[in-house]
Amino acid sequence: MISKAELQQRIVQTVRDVRETNPMAGSVTNTVTVNFVANAQIAAGGSAAMVYLPDEGEFLATAGWATYINMGTLFPVYEETLPRTAQTLHDASRPWVLDPVGIGIGSLRTRLLQQLRPYKPTVIRGNASEIIALASLWEVAVDDTTARVRGVDSTQGVGEARAAAIALARYTDGAVAVSGVDDLVTDGNVVARSHGGSHFMAKITGSGCSLGGVAAVYSTMAPSPFTAALTAVNAYNLAGSRAERRVDGPGSFQVAFLDELYKASAEDIARNPFELEEA
Amino acid sequence: MISKAELQQRIVQTVRDVRETNPMAGSVTNTVTVNFVANAQIAAGGSAAMVYLPDEGEFLATAGWATYINMGTLFPVYEETLPRTAQTLHDASRPWVLDPVGIGIGSLRTRLLQQLRPYKPTVIRGNASEIIALASLWEVAVDDTTARVRGVDSTQGVGEARAAAIALARYTDGAVAVSGVDDLVTDGNVVARSHGGSHFMAKITGSGCSLGGVAAVYSTMAPSPFTAALTAVNAYNLAGSRAERRVDGPGSFQVAFLDELYKASAEDIARNPFELEEA
Amino acid sequence: MISKAELQQRIVQTVRDVRETNPMAGSVTNTVTVNFVANAQIAAGGSAAMVYLPDEGEFLATAGWATYINMGTLFPVYEETLPRTAQTLHDASRPWVLDPVGIGIGSLRTRLLQQLRPYKPTVIRGNASEIIALASLWEVAVDDTTARVRGVDSTQGVGEARAAAIALARYTDGAVAVSGVDDLVTDGNVVARSHGGSHFMAKITGSGCSLGGVAAVYSTMAPSPFTAALTAVNAYNLAGSRAERRVDGPGSFQVAFLDELYKASAEDIARNPFELEEA
Repeated sequence: MISKAELQQRIVQTVRDVRETNPMAGSVTNTVTVNFVANAQIAAGGSAAMVYLPDEGEFLATAGWATYINMGTLFPVYEETLPRTAQTLHDASRPWVLDPVGIGIGSLRTRLLQQLRPYKPTVIRGNASEIIALASLWEVAVDDTTARVRGVDSTQGVGEARAAAIALARYTDGAVAVSGVDDLVTDGNVVARSHGGSHFMAKITGSGCSLGGVAAVYSTMAPSPFTAALTAVNAYNLAGSRAERRVDGPGSFQVAFLDELYKASAEDIARNPFELEEA
Repeated sequence: MISKAELQQRIVQTVRDVRETNPMAGSVTNTVTVNFVANAQIAAGGSAAMVYLPDEGEFLATAGWATYINMGTLFPVYEETLPRTAQTLHDASRPWVLDPVGIGIGSLRTRLLQQLRPYKPTVIRGNASEIIALASLWEVAVDDTTARVRGVDSTQGVGEARAAAIALARYTDGAVAVSGVDDLVTDGNVVARSHGGSHFMAKITGSGCSLGGVAAVYSTMAPSPFTAALTAVNAYNLAGSRAERRVDGPGSFQVAFLDELYKASAEDIARNPFELEEA
Repeated sequence: MISKAELQQRIVQTVRDVRETNPMAGSVTNTVTVNFVANAQIAAGGSAAMVYLPDEGEFLATAGWATYINMGTLFPVYEETLPRTAQTLHDASRPWVLDPVGIGIGSLRTRLLQQLRPYKPTVIRGNASEIIALASLWEVAVDDTTARVRGVDSTQGVGEARAAAIALARYTDGAVAVSGVDDLVTDGNVVARSHGGSHFMAKITGSGCSLGGVAAVYSTMAPSPFTAALTAVNAYNLAGSRAERRVDGPGSFQVAFLDELYKASAEDIARNPFELEEA
């Protein structure tokens, strides 16, 4: 298993490389939080471009360094856009992040998520119930022994999704990030738990979506999907806890959060509290 | 007529129930202010979900506790989404809020508003001219005697819509909230005037839309459409006047407004200045 | 060539007339920054309305005082909406602003931009590469002699687009605004360079889009497209530099920027540093 020190060094390098390179990560994402996603991607050092049309998704899939696909607020044209974009990403071996938000709502969402399965996202991000639902939809083999570990987990929600996250990561050969009070990141072999954040992150819309968008930005430079996802999660937990100290409501939290994400040093992101364990 | 004290007690209970229950209110709403709507709904204690597709609207109509339908930035698919969602809400007797923003612009908007008529929204929210236009489009019987009262009204705009609001509320057996310098809320029998707010609410986009979204959140717990609408209006007037004291421009007003909406106590919302009169 | 003092007087008058008249400028614009565009238009003294459907675009083209068309996040229906809206604007001699964002991405965007050519936008706003790409797409005759001037330009990007901007302005008989570290505005005869702004304007999404929307607002009252564009650019450079002094990150910059745009006096906008030269 990779040592924590080695992983921290990789996080530092990923954050620095992104800030020096300003890589573009395209998105097909929902209208609710699209502005926050773009601003968070820019604050992290990347640049953003959002599209809806099929050939534009394909264009960004290869013109961008990575792509973020978020299933919120589907439009009819997504029936073509999402599969074509994901296939292009897969065929070109470009990193992409899938956020299966709203899984279970409506027929198109289910059909699209099934179609995306063979294109194996580099990083999957969701909350516990979304990750469990996706593992079930994709019929990845969830290890029941691992699943039982959840009983000892202090952050019930995220712990419950541990086995599903590991199974998804093993299927995609990528990483899965489960958002909760603490966050879980796994590549199927190692499980990281990252701490921090703020209770205000559940009091605004877009903290999850923008984390997915920022994971796409880091995936352009990170040496592995696991490093990309953990870098994003650590950055969010750090910025969230710093922002909370400065504010007394969700409006000012959003503002302070973007400021702190922008100002966080690579070293501080790497040092945000987290632990590693075997999957 | 209900006493003011009794109504205030209902407002207190509604605010508390929402904060304890965290009810989900789905929305089909415009892209301009969708983020502000979601954040305001969460700040008030609810949770938010936004969709565009017909079967997703139907799903949220019964999976959510209430639904907010806002006519801004129509997409072609709304031709199916809005009637199907409203019919599902009506058939399932779920509360829903209609915001007829942009009434008069384009043929689809007019046609859709006509189609929504039989599904009788629980709460209608709009500014004076929108409420007057909707009463005319729906051909509800506006009482001219009541209409003439407007001459003595200090807040001309809202006063002019008094008769239309009463007529609409009697038709729907729900409530109507008219936004202006002061706000008018009626269920067709009682008329409440709520005071406060801020001149900055007209200097930002989304204060009206998000009020509609928050009314949907309160309608999940309120004992009547009138209480739901007045709770939302009182909360907005309170948060608006508090936010104005802390800021010197519309950018910081939005931020402070969400903070104050989040922090307002149930008692303070109930005590925000308002009067009652017979319709 | 117009004197600087005369131009400053026109800027003062434009800002004042907008604030007194509260003119409505409709938009067909992208979902990423649509909220920021609307709030900036309102902060400048205008009012905003956003639509997507063809007959709604046509309606606003004549019901509004000016229209802003931004090519970001195209929807399929834009295939009809944009040409019909632009033709209506042209036929009714109403001012409109074109922002060719994303030029080069996807087939619909290219086709639409070609179709918009005969409708000659009053103001074109873009960064240097977008202006150069549009001049090329529209095959306007770029003067090579002028182009060579770029070698002496300190702000390389904007300077490189000088000849393309002049050529486009001569073709449309309107104005072109090129955004960069310094900004260039030209009507084909005079070139203005406006200074100020903030490095944070490149660290948020929407500073360019909202500048286009605000240029549409000023074009409702300005005596010429050139005055409209320069008023907007000056207001942005002033508000940007003032906002930067108050903040330490991109989240708080957005908030402070809207505040400063709202508070800027007509005189201060006119006095923001700029120079004039012959094209």
